[in-house]
Amino acid sequence: MQLRQDKGVSRKFEELIKLALERGFFTSASEIYSDAPAGFWDYGPLGAAMKRKFIELWRRELVRRDCMLEIDGAQILSKSVFKASGHLDSFVDPIARCSKCGAIYRVDKLIEERTGLHVPERLNLDEMRRIVEENDVRCTRCGGKLTGYYYFNMMFRIGIGVAEADAYLRPETCQNIFVDFLRLYKTMRRKLPFAIAQYGKSFRNEISPRQGLLRMREFYQAEIEVFFNPNRANDFPKADAVMDYELRLQQVGESEPSEITCREALSQGLISSKLVAYYLALIQQFYEKAGIPKERIRLRQLGEDEKAFYAVEAWDLEVETSLGWIELVACNNRGDHDLGGHQRMSGQEMEVLDDGQKILPHVFELSMGVDRSLYCILENFLDLENGKTILRLPPYLAPIDAAILPLVSREPLTSKAMEIYDELRRDFDVEYDDSGSIGRRYMRYDEVGVPICITVDYQTMEDDTVTIRFRDSAHQIRVDVSDLPCLMRGWLAYP
Amino acid sequence: MQLRQDKGVSRKFEELIKLALERGFFTSASEIYSDAPAGFWDYGPLGAAMKRKFIELWRRELVRRDCMLEIDGAQILSKSVFKASGHLDSFVDPIARCSKCGAIYRVDKLIEERTGLHVPERLNLDEMRRIVEENDVRCTRCGGKLTGYYYFNMMFRIGIGVAEADAYLRPETCQNIFVDFLRLYKTMRRKLPFAIAQYGKSFRNEISPRQGLLRMREFYQAEIEVFFNPNRANDFPKADAVMDYELRLQQVGESEPSEITCREALSQGLISSKLVAYYLALIQQFYEKAGIPKERIRLRQLGEDEKAFYAVEAWDLEVETSLGWIELVACNNRGDHDLGGHQRMSGQEMEVLDDGQKILPHVFELSMGVDRSLYCILENFLDLENGKTILRLPPYLAPIDAAILPLVSREPLTSKAMEIYDELRRDFDVEYDDSGSIGRRYMRYDEVGVPICITVDYQTMEDDTVTIRFRDSAHQIRVDVSDLPCLMRGWLAYP
Repeated sequence: MQLRQDKGVSRKFEELIKLALERGFFTSASEIYSDAPAGFWDYGPLGAAMKRKFIELWRRELVRRDCMLEIDGAQILSKSVFKASGHLDSFVDPIARCSKCGAIYRVDKLIEERTGLHVPERLNLDEMRRIVEENDVRCTRCGGKLTGYYYFNMMFRIGIGVAEADAYLRPETCQNIFVDFLRLYKTMRRKLPFAIAQYGKSFRNEISPRQGLLRMREFYQAEIEVFFNPNRANDFPKADAVMDYELRLQQVGESEPSEITCREALSQGLISSKLVAYYLALIQQFYEKAGIPKERIRLRQLGEDEKAFYAVEAWDLEVETSLGWIELVACNNRGDHDLGGHQRMSGQEMEVLDDGQKILPHVFELSMGVDRSLYCILENFLDLENGKTILRLPPYLAPIDAAILPLVSREPLTSKAMEIYDELRRDFDVEYDDSGSIGRRYMRYDEVGVPICITVDYQTMEDDTVTIRFRDSAHQIRVDVSDLPCLMRGWLAYP
Repeated sequence: MQLRQDKGVSRKFEELIKLALERGFFTSASEIYSDAPAGFWDYGPLGAAMKRKFIELWRRELVRRDCMLEIDGAQILSKSVFKASGHLDSFVDPIARCSKCGAIYRVDKLIEERTGLHVPERLNLDEMRRIVEENDVRCTRCGGKLTGYYYFNMMFRIGIGVAEADAYLRPETCQNIFVDFLRLYKTMRRKLPFAIAQYGKSFRNEISPRQGLLRMREFYQAEIEVFFNPNRANDFPKADAVMDYELRLQQVGESEPSEITCREALSQGLISSKLVAYYLALIQQFYEKAGIPKERIRLRQLGEDEKAFYAVEAWDLEVETSLGWIELVACNNRGDHDLGGHQRMSGQEMEVLDDGQKILPHVFELSMGVDRSLYCILENFLDLENGKTILRLPPYLAPIDAAILPLVSREPLTSKAMEIYDELRRDFDVEYDDSGSIGRRYMRYDEVGVPICITVDYQTMEDDTVTIRFRDSAHQIRVDVSDLPCLMRGWLAYP
């Protein structure tokens, strides 16, 4: 097992990793080999099923709700794409190595760890070297001095063809969206403002991946890029529907979020436009639908020194966990950085007609980390009280919809239970299980969040009814077998 | 546009590529750049939606039908994984370059192209060089002689971390399944035989990618690996259900497939076991459900000189198109090649208990190319007769479920149509469109396979009914707006 042991993880984190490994949520990739690189994970059957349901919720509550286009693009893109996007020059980490033992460090992180000083995102290498020297920051392993400072590009290079021409694994899914923007705008006959979404893998050669799904080298993003006319970001009638919705905003300089309606936030100038307010509302509502209590969600405004190199206005949607607040969605106003860059580099004009004028659209993005979202949801619903493990996931996010259990492993109960299982399994994610006592089986399915157990007993053989046992209440009811598909659809329905 | 022009493509192929580009099915990745590498494609909104529905069908008709486990693993795996799998040594193409102009050739393909000779899969480099010299095969561009023969490994290397340690993008999705086999077997409490499935990207550095979705460098696979005890491959009661089903088998040496029941194929010894017969039946049935006429499907047995380096018994499921028969699924008996290799390399014991004995499971796989399957389905349903384009996809594979059209673009019809659209769009893939004449709009949606158009007219304002127009018959019926969700579920249902 290649699971990295980190300082500062919580009991909940550890219990969750244990559950994940033992019950098929996720595991380190290449785990049987000692050369398994860190930061790569495989989703097991339960993790993969839960991820599918999470993405279905994202599609429903964001993509379909807002009539977005959704694409699925290549992960390997040409070198020019990343020259234009700025990643070739700017997507770098400051690196140095120990002059004695050769250990490699990310200089900004090492400074923060050793001195408690905050290193702004845009500090240059010389300034960092100066801080290292002034504070005598040294190798944590052997105490050696740092040397060999340079910028390490976090993209993975790919050699194409026999000549190994340069291309790169995308470090963010959105670059396909920008490159394809004009084709999609034309062929899909859109008008500004409109959004394009994409779910898929991105890749970053992190110096020190860690903490399970929270910092991976290969990870899933679900990104939404909203294209708009910057002169008309307040001419946005859709926002009317969310004006009274309370955002949990935490401005720069504040230590806590406060609840404030979109209307009020706009009138106080905390948010730059109706368009931005609307999408911040949508993303916060999405996590509420995923079951995160509102008080554990905040939209934290990023200061000048925290923002990504392309961001004009930036809010991070964060969720509170046992490890602290974790960033799940970067909500960035990327301005015309992307379309402008690709227009210059490719010579392909990216301007479109809006309100009688040719303009280069600006972009507001909701860039979601899928794996870490799953971690936060799992942790949020992991109930370890009274010595039992119950994963209290919303039914529409549960990896298994129902378990079908003969009361005892004996005919005719097993055949009858198998018959019900066969009836349900093409339309639902169901499991059949006849091994162990019924109480033990209930526990087994509570642990992985199965919302209902369907028990076949001797009465079933007489009147074709089964017992439904609900995970959260342990309450039991009796229903007709023929009503199961319809009832299950109701229990599993979106709120 | 980086679309590669190939010799030997058909009119249907060309029409389909045109439709794909103009209507958002797929397009070359990085297409606005001249350094866009060949063999990488982006699915646009319609292609992505159709692919999702195709995968949902795969999940329903294979994964869920057969109670398989489904995982979703990392694409980058350690070097040891591919040492064990044999890909580091054997996943190679024979290459040579022109001594005059430097053009690079895949030697086996060049020989076949220039001489018509068939080059067996396992011929070595010296033998190929001999054939080149004996037949005076030369550079097709300048007539120069070939030189610099070597084996080119088709995996993309990845450098992990600052030290750029070797890892590789997986050339087939199944390696995660083999590496994780024992953990999944134990934690998911399975017994032999059982199957593990995975849908995801694979990567191969093809020398000359071409023909759109048919030979890509980054592509989707949906792979199924069935683990079984080789001594008990006929102890397989599930196969009883398919014994009378007719496979379309084409044995080595035959030029046409013949229809033969599983029972008969087994009794004649054409198929090695009930287990293999069952999975061949499942995969053929899957393509029938996807709408491919049975007479355009065949299971072609591969001879010794065609099989992959790990295959014991191999059948290719092929579908006939305007470009000829295209291989969509490799059905391989991989024997104990994979688990044996990983057991030796990792030291992790892969044997499991079955029938009272410890055995190393064998593997039968159904390795599906998703992109080429989509191509074949699209082409199969592309109807170009009478100067019109109609994409006659089965409703459950159509990228858009329904188009909602106000008869004219005028109030109150537009608001009413928008209201119906808003009602349907979280549960269905629907489009609203009010631009152009109604006939023109019907054509627009016929072209991309939308099975029904819902038209809002003046009568709608009086009695809350709409016209449903069916794509294939152009037949129209009148239904209540309130019945739409229920009716649509019926029209879109799986057969």
